Amino acid sequence: MKSKKSLSYKQAGVDIDTGEKFVKKITNLVRETHREEVIPSLSGFGGLFSLEGYRSPVLVSSTDGVGTKLLLASLMDEYEGVGKDLVAMNVNDVLAMGAEPIFFLDYIATGKIEAEVGERIIRGIAYGCKEAGCALLGGETAEMPQFYEYGQYELVGFAVGVVEKEKIIDGSNIKPADKIFGLSSSGLHSNGFSLVRKILFACSSHPSGEQEDLRREEKIRILQKKEKMLGKSWGEELLIPTRIYVKSILPLIKKGIMITGLAHITGGGLIDNIKRLLPEGCQARLLPERWKVPPVFSILQERGNIEDEEMYRVFNMGIGMVIIAPPDEEKKIMDDFSNRREPVFLIGEVTSGEKGVVIE
Amino acid sequence: MKSKKSLSYKQAGVDIDTGEKFVKKITNLVRETHREEVIPSLSGFGGLFSLEGYRSPVLVSSTDGVGTKLLLASLMDEYEGVGKDLVAMNVNDVLAMGAEPIFFLDYIATGKIEAEVGERIIRGIAYGCKEAGCALLGGETAEMPQFYEYGQYELVGFAVGVVEKEKIIDGSNIKPADKIFGLSSSGLHSNGFSLVRKILFACSSHPSGEQEDLRREEKIRILQKKEKMLGKSWGEELLIPTRIYVKSILPLIKKGIMITGLAHITGGGLIDNIKRLLPEGCQARLLPERWKVPPVFSILQERGNIEDEEMYRVFNMGIGMVIIAPPDEEKKIMDDFSNRREPVFLIGEVTSGEKGVVIE
Repeated sequence: MKSKKSLSYKQAGVDIDTGEKFVKKITNLVRETHREEVIPSLSGFGGLFSLEGYRSPVLVSSTDGVGTKLLLASLMDEYEGVGKDLVAMNVNDVLAMGAEPIFFLDYIATGKIEAEVGERIIRGIAYGCKEAGCALLGGETAEMPQFYEYGQYELVGFAVGVVEKEKIIDGSNIKPADKIFGLSSSGLHSNGFSLVRKILFACSSHPSGEQEDLRREEKIRILQKKEKMLGKSWGEELLIPTRIYVKSILPLIKKGIMITGLAHITGGGLIDNIKRLLPEGCQARLLPERWKVPPVFSILQERGNIEDEEMYRVFNMGIGMVIIAPPDEEKKIMDDFSNRREPVFLIGEVTSGEKGVVIE
Repeated sequence: MKSKKSLSYKQAGVDIDTGEKFVKKITNLVRETHREEVIPSLSGFGGLFSLEGYRSPVLVSSTDGVGTKLLLASLMDEYEGVGKDLVAMNVNDVLAMGAEPIFFLDYIATGKIEAEVGERIIRGIAYGCKEAGCALLGGETAEMPQFYEYGQYELVGFAVGVVEKEKIIDGSNIKPADKIFGLSSSGLHSNGFSLVRKILFACSSHPSGEQEDLRREEKIRILQKKEKMLGKSWGEELLIPTRIYVKSILPLIKKGIMITGLAHITGGGLIDNIKRLLPEGCQARLLPERWKVPPVFSILQERGNIEDEEMYRVFNMGIGMVIIAPPDEEKKIMDDFSNRREPVFLIGEVTSGEKGVVIE
């Protein structure tokens, strides 16, 4: 029961009518993301992207999903945001190697495709691709009855970027005295949701932490409750899509500002993701008073009675992308963000010492 | 509960001990697939692949999963084969545009990672990558409790290939009198499994076709039963991994033999997948007496009482890759396969007529 899609979407994997309706709806969304390098093809077995004008191009690739944030999206019936999350998780990783994301592919799997839900997901993905400046080059929508349930949607993304070989940023040039800058996150992004669910759904009538036994309706009720300190409901707060940093970082690179490290803060938080960048003998010292940790993190910490270090390992704590650069570049970086009226925080410094991250 | 992986595997998404054990086991498997273009990186946010020596490179990308063949793999506890299927489904699509697959990424998601199962999947993926000559450049192993059940594994693959712009093969140069060649499939490959399950699991004590109600043990019993005409059990036959055609096709391209169309026969069968290639006014006429349809297809057809045309739309009928080339190239192609002692069948011809595929 498969139908062919136009573009490079290979198979809707759905009955013909739903499939065609779905394809029709997404065709324009997909096309709007296309860059001039995208080459249309007759057969469309694969998506085509022309890569001219590079001297020593290096392709940078990433694959990731949205994780159990999908469970909350399903409870709140909110799918556009996780579509954007999917793009963000991948393009931010590609960006963290100093590369420009050029194209993206998505894989959506479900028990029975609902054209309207599929469209909302693709709308979010297309929105994310446009924001990241990368083409939505292809994808697969797989209908897998008996494997997935009705209403259960898995999302997987795949991004490719390109960078000139000598411009790869991977942390190996980081030196003591380098400055550490942080860019705000939009919220929790797409990590830490297993812990969040434990905290939220245990704070109800089931103090045992057995949130698995909570009824769906009860979970929805908790998510819809307006939380005064957040100014919105838990569901709204938790489903804020992951910020995409492409337009924040690429201008620095294109201006020739020297960057020695970029860290996308995902699972493992500020501690593990900055540590990945550090050469031996380099220690990152972070000063949390330099930025404001958003209230959602403090509330979760208090409710879950979680230790500080654990918070910094699971959540982004308000910083979703970290830039490390030599001290000479500090003024240029601060000025560049200032000119764009975009906040940036000088959150710490690299020192000599045992490789690792210290929160002061 | 995430742990960091070496290589470009970002996050095992599992508890530290299982994660580290898993990573240790797969590190060598992954490394064996690497080509000289793979660049190691310190931070590893994305996989790096150097692309030098092309004049006008075009990247060709594909994403696909294995579909509900996974349900049979789970029943038979056979995961290496679906790992290879995953690579095959993607690299064959990339190849069908005339491109050389250069790297692959995998996404594995489950409720609770079992290191031993994960290793078997990666072993199959690595095996497929080696056979396709492409590097296993990265991947994500996501543990998503409550989203997936224990023992439920989803597999998604992404392949990227490269081709010089003027060498793209997409069917647009196909002309009447072009010859159509077929390469054998290894079996069902990874399509048609929803229909197969309906046929097999309905032929038991549940003639209603309600195979969803069949107990797991009953399904296993059916799959393990030796089927005389196949010389093996149904489970063994159905789980034969998808053939990878890279080493069959690339030599022709590298020798400069002109190919006007390549069709990877997936969902939609010979009819829809060849049709995708055809320009207006070109009709593909296939002569089924030119190749031997393997017994598995005849048995399924008989048991399910399925019409011929439906069979040719759902299954590959013994031909997994189709080559279309001008008549001048016929001898060169036949000789090339003959020199490699690889069977190839001249299965039909392109004629003037209404765009479509006719089975004679």
